[in-house]
Amino acid sequence: MIAFKHSFKNDYSEMAHPRILQALFAVGNKQFEGYGLDEYSAEAAKLIGDKINAPSADVHFISGGTQANLVVISSILRPHEAVIAPESGHIFVHETGAIEATGHKICTREGHNGKLCAADIESVVLEHSDEHMVKPRIVYISLSTEGGTVYSKAELSSVSEYCRRKGLYLYIDGARLGAAINSPSCDLTYSDVAGFVDVFFIGGTKIGALFGEAIVICNDDLKEDFRFLLKQRGALLAKGAAIGVQFRTLLTDGLFDELALYSNAMSKRLADGIRSLGYTFLYPVETNIIIPVFPAGIADGLHKLYGFHDWKRFGDMTAVRLVSSWATPENMVDEFIADLSTMS
Amino acid sequence: MIAFKHSFKNDYSEMAHPRILQALFAVGNKQFEGYGLDEYSAEAAKLIGDKINAPSADVHFISGGTQANLVVISSILRPHEAVIAPESGHIFVHETGAIEATGHKICTREGHNGKLCAADIESVVLEHSDEHMVKPRIVYISLSTEGGTVYSKAELSSVSEYCRRKGLYLYIDGARLGAAINSPSCDLTYSDVAGFVDVFFIGGTKIGALFGEAIVICNDDLKEDFRFLLKQRGALLAKGAAIGVQFRTLLTDGLFDELALYSNAMSKRLADGIRSLGYTFLYPVETNIIIPVFPAGIADGLHKLYGFHDWKRFGDMTAVRLVSSWATPENMVDEFIADLSTMS
Amino acid sequence: MIAFKHSFKNDYSEMAHPRILQALFAVGNKQFEGYGLDEYSAEAAKLIGDKINAPSADVHFISGGTQANLVVISSILRPHEAVIAPESGHIFVHETGAIEATGHKICTREGHNGKLCAADIESVVLEHSDEHMVKPRIVYISLSTEGGTVYSKAELSSVSEYCRRKGLYLYIDGARLGAAINSPSCDLTYSDVAGFVDVFFIGGTKIGALFGEAIVICNDDLKEDFRFLLKQRGALLAKGAAIGVQFRTLLTDGLFDELALYSNAMSKRLADGIRSLGYTFLYPVETNIIIPVFPAGIADGLHKLYGFHDWKRFGDMTAVRLVSSWATPENMVDEFIADLSTMS
Amino acid sequence: MIAFKHSFKNDYSEMAHPRILQALFAVGNKQFEGYGLDEYSAEAAKLIGDKINAPSADVHFISGGTQANLVVISSILRPHEAVIAPESGHIFVHETGAIEATGHKICTREGHNGKLCAADIESVVLEHSDEHMVKPRIVYISLSTEGGTVYSKAELSSVSEYCRRKGLYLYIDGARLGAAINSPSCDLTYSDVAGFVDVFFIGGTKIGALFGEAIVICNDDLKEDFRFLLKQRGALLAKGAAIGVQFRTLLTDGLFDELALYSNAMSKRLADGIRSLGYTFLYPVETNIIIPVFPAGIADGLHKLYGFHDWKRFGDMTAVRLVSSWATPENMVDEFIADLSTMS
Repeated sequence: MIAFKHSFKNDYSEMAHPRILQALFAVGNKQFEGYGLDEYSAEAAKLIGDKINAPSADVHFISGGTQANLVVISSILRPHEAVIAPESGHIFVHETGAIEATGHKICTREGHNGKLCAADIESVVLEHSDEHMVKPRIVYISLSTEGGTVYSKAELSSVSEYCRRKGLYLYIDGARLGAAINSPSCDLTYSDVAGFVDVFFIGGTKIGALFGEAIVICNDDLKEDFRFLLKQRGALLAKGAAIGVQFRTLLTDGLFDELALYSNAMSKRLADGIRSLGYTFLYPVETNIIIPVFPAGIADGLHKLYGFHDWKRFGDMTAVRLVSSWATPENMVDEFIADLSTMS
Repeated sequence: MIAFKHSFKNDYSEMAHPRILQALFAVGNKQFEGYGLDEYSAEAAKLIGDKINAPSADVHFISGGTQANLVVISSILRPHEAVIAPESGHIFVHETGAIEATGHKICTREGHNGKLCAADIESVVLEHSDEHMVKPRIVYISLSTEGGTVYSKAELSSVSEYCRRKGLYLYIDGARLGAAINSPSCDLTYSDVAGFVDVFFIGGTKIGALFGEAIVICNDDLKEDFRFLLKQRGALLAKGAAIGVQFRTLLTDGLFDELALYSNAMSKRLADGIRSLGYTFLYPVETNIIIPVFPAGIADGLHKLYGFHDWKRFGDMTAVRLVSSWATPENMVDEFIADLSTMS
Repeated sequence: MIAFKHSFKNDYSEMAHPRILQALFAVGNKQFEGYGLDEYSAEAAKLIGDKINAPSADVHFISGGTQANLVVISSILRPHEAVIAPESGHIFVHETGAIEATGHKICTREGHNGKLCAADIESVVLEHSDEHMVKPRIVYISLSTEGGTVYSKAELSSVSEYCRRKGLYLYIDGARLGAAINSPSCDLTYSDVAGFVDVFFIGGTKIGALFGEAIVICNDDLKEDFRFLLKQRGALLAKGAAIGVQFRTLLTDGLFDELALYSNAMSKRLADGIRSLGYTFLYPVETNIIIPVFPAGIADGLHKLYGFHDWKRFGDMTAVRLVSSWATPENMVDEFIADLSTMS
Repeated sequence: MIAFKHSFKNDYSEMAHPRILQALFAVGNKQFEGYGLDEYSAEAAKLIGDKINAPSADVHFISGGTQANLVVISSILRPHEAVIAPESGHIFVHETGAIEATGHKICTREGHNGKLCAADIESVVLEHSDEHMVKPRIVYISLSTEGGTVYSKAELSSVSEYCRRKGLYLYIDGARLGAAINSPSCDLTYSDVAGFVDVFFIGGTKIGALFGEAIVICNDDLKEDFRFLLKQRGALLAKGAAIGVQFRTLLTDGLFDELALYSNAMSKRLADGIRSLGYTFLYPVETNIIIPVFPAGIADGLHKLYGFHDWKRFGDMTAVRLVSSWATPENMVDEFIADLSTMS
């Protein structure tokens, strides 16, 4: 029941790209093995291995991002080990304590633009010196971040190098990995990411799938028994083939990147329009999430016409979070700019 | 890659009933609220409330059965409280310790035909007398059971009455609730079930949905903050509407019961044919799961032609589990019987 | 193997007050019930009820503070509920993620002098608005704090009143409750504390017992099945009587307060001497923990003679934490001051 | 408040052997390092290493057996891994779900006389075949068992050999290890035990300490970070020296074995008397726990005079559990036999 002209709340407000639904239809009554052991999932995993240039990586399909985060992290850590994350990290803020519910503490640093650098991580490591404190063991970062920013190759390389030197695992929440890699600000390739991390996941839900994320385990030491963990946390879908089919489709004929480029383009168009009216942004405009800062009155006015979330308030100013998706209509972007222009 | 003529392994070997996929298509690019707060889910919940004659029950949609079990049970119990379940209960055998992973012990009794009676439950209660033992607090049963059997109204009423008298919650894993209620052996209505239990779930995956189960909380005391628990366990799907749409379709024009009746009918046809060849069954034939007992040599022969799991071996005999679904072709049932006849 | 003149590291560097060991001796071979159901524990519980003027409170004896914290907190919270604590709170910093290991997140605020006020707590509450975030349910504070400071009656009353209004439980870690109540800066009585909180514990270990803390549950709603929780976490000592005997002794002839007064007096003497040499303190000097700030060179010099921990560094200055106990020799206090005087 | 002549309920009904309390006294006000890093603990650990002929084993002192079990097991297992234990195992029956509270399932077999053999363990292993079930990883047995029986060297060797071949860890709950090793039925030495297992603990509480168990980690792979786990579970006692002093005393001048021999002797005397009156025993009489079978009327009569627990009822017969300790008076043993004789 969306009452306004259009919602820029998030990139999961529309069902799924038609080619994905068509692919599910096309299976018909064909029988497949349960729990992800089907041929569609195998083929999708192969396509991912090719795309990231890591054919020996293990790929597991799962229904959502919180689930991916909690299964991956709890599969790796011993009880006293902890996660290092940025303060704005989804696992720290918006997953209802999912990681803690598996028994682990999250140690945070503010970072910059939603990103951690090696020095941030090191400051956590140095603070944890003995058995009266948890032992940091895995670093969680998002690409792109909650605020839509991306790591450069130099940035990610530095984080990765620090982690390896210190025996920390590096894990990327890639719920919006497509948007990141297809950002003009990001010089990383999929293959670079796979090379820098121990585990990451490639988001399907937010790029245009009905649901589904692909967990990719690059580090051999972390592969053992992962399906046990999936099953235990309720993450092994009986009809796992339903995710396999979707990822196979996303990875065929470039659909995955095409959808990412489109949503990024809509956000850029929106950002350009907003900037042209004299507004600034909280973070660099890099992907399909942008955070312009408006006078509170203007933000309130826009709320009557469009769906979106406030990100932060500073005195009389409100930073708001506008998200585009594979389905965002160009004319709604233009209408938003026009309405903003009228109010300004 | 199903290599044999047909698989009777389970009722989740085919994607989804065409009307369900059509309904997902029909949504198009229409925007909806995230995390199950959409109009489709609301409408589906209303249809469920009507069907079970419990309009005040809370309905939550979730992606799978293991997830439903672990969220429901861990939402109810204090750390020292335990579940009572039959030894063949899915949570005890085939969920990789999902309940224990949330901190709780499962206390089992063998039961009869996969079912618990009040005396079974009482024997657990009496055994747990002080703070050196866990405190049983919730009873888990399945309808239908893993072996395809159903509770009669008298049986379920007796269990329910005992639980209420002793302050135990009663929870039904209804992954195959449709098959049960539509069994000629079962005199329970959906409304009866809702009246006897505190919580149950209605399975969508196995009846013909792409994925999705509907948790129904009948007891007001157990409703508080349930969405927090869903989110924490990774069970709150971003595009929750995708399940809402499916359940709305299942509950429109009688599709849900139609599919259950069909799969039950295929199993009955299969059972009749097997029985006519002189074989017996481990449990009564009641739903879409049947467990005939064959000489081991015959079972081995059938394995070359059909997919199915062995259930149990007794000396030279093998009990095998044959499952029909909404998509089981009648001619495959007949062919199975013909092949069995040839081997016999 | 304490190599220096004296250790001011903590108040648990000496075994136990002789009267406590004598009391254990005096039991001889007399038989008692196991697991804290003995007459000594009952008598000690009665003495505590009298002392705090809350005869209906439940009292449980346990071996240590971390254990008390984790049992109490996990006994109260549902899985999605969280603790609010000061950033310097022992449970957040120095218990190796014990609370998270029971599944719960800790939400922190910096507070002031190690203490939280109602506004701090409210800012956490306001931030947690929906099911994507944990739900704060219990407030953890320490009396006295890790930095040796105390809450005044007005301060604690305000916190308590806010918690009750908002449905938050208030829990006090009283590992050093005796030192706090016997502080000249603290106008709280034991009875006041019992009236303001839902649960608290009274520390025995740090006041002069061999080991043992007394958990006091004031709120009737939190009493049920607490012994189950104790047993489950390994906190129900077979010879629970050993703690009962010690608390009975502490609460006889005023020993408890006498030991607290003595350790506070040693710290005051030490603080007075330090202050007379021109040094300042990070926090007000209120109990048996004081945190003077020295030039780093002086702190380093003192480390060669005395045992103590650095608390924090600011440029060239080091704040150090000096702790007195029931057994701190007055001449060691004076020697410390003399040595400091020499170095200054 | 023990109302009867004498309690044979357990071996922790009396405080502590006088030499242990004297040793605590003898420390005086001498300062020591906190959390078990003191010289007493180091010396006690050294004495244990000598006694078990495994100088490189890690030794950690802890306050009780349930705590030892939960810390050890949860330190070893990944989330999906499980414990194999006998049905009568303390962790399965009488620890209020402590292991499950750390997230792990216990898979049981009935065994024989409270003991598991390799075939029992193998039957669990064979049953757990894929990721829909937990993965057994550690075998828990008790020496002596809850029923007072012991493993022979051949029995333990066979279990150990099977575990090593299958990659299972072997853990012994040695709450009553002293009674076992000093049993005439047991041909195992302490050194044998250390050689056969990966981890075990040596019970202090039940042999005559005030409290305290010594966890011994023989397998190097399981040593890492164990103190973190201890702290996290609330098991790292501030005055850890208090346990070190006790174990140092127990291991000096043969006190440990002397106390075990005494309690075994009292049980043998009791058993001989009971047997001479024509009664039989449920299990072989081997240590300080014996389980004679009496007509229910006689058991009821004895309950009026002596403290003890019923173990099991069979029709008109009651098996009762009689436990001796280091402090059991010989004349009470004789009086029990005399009273039984009168009733018979």
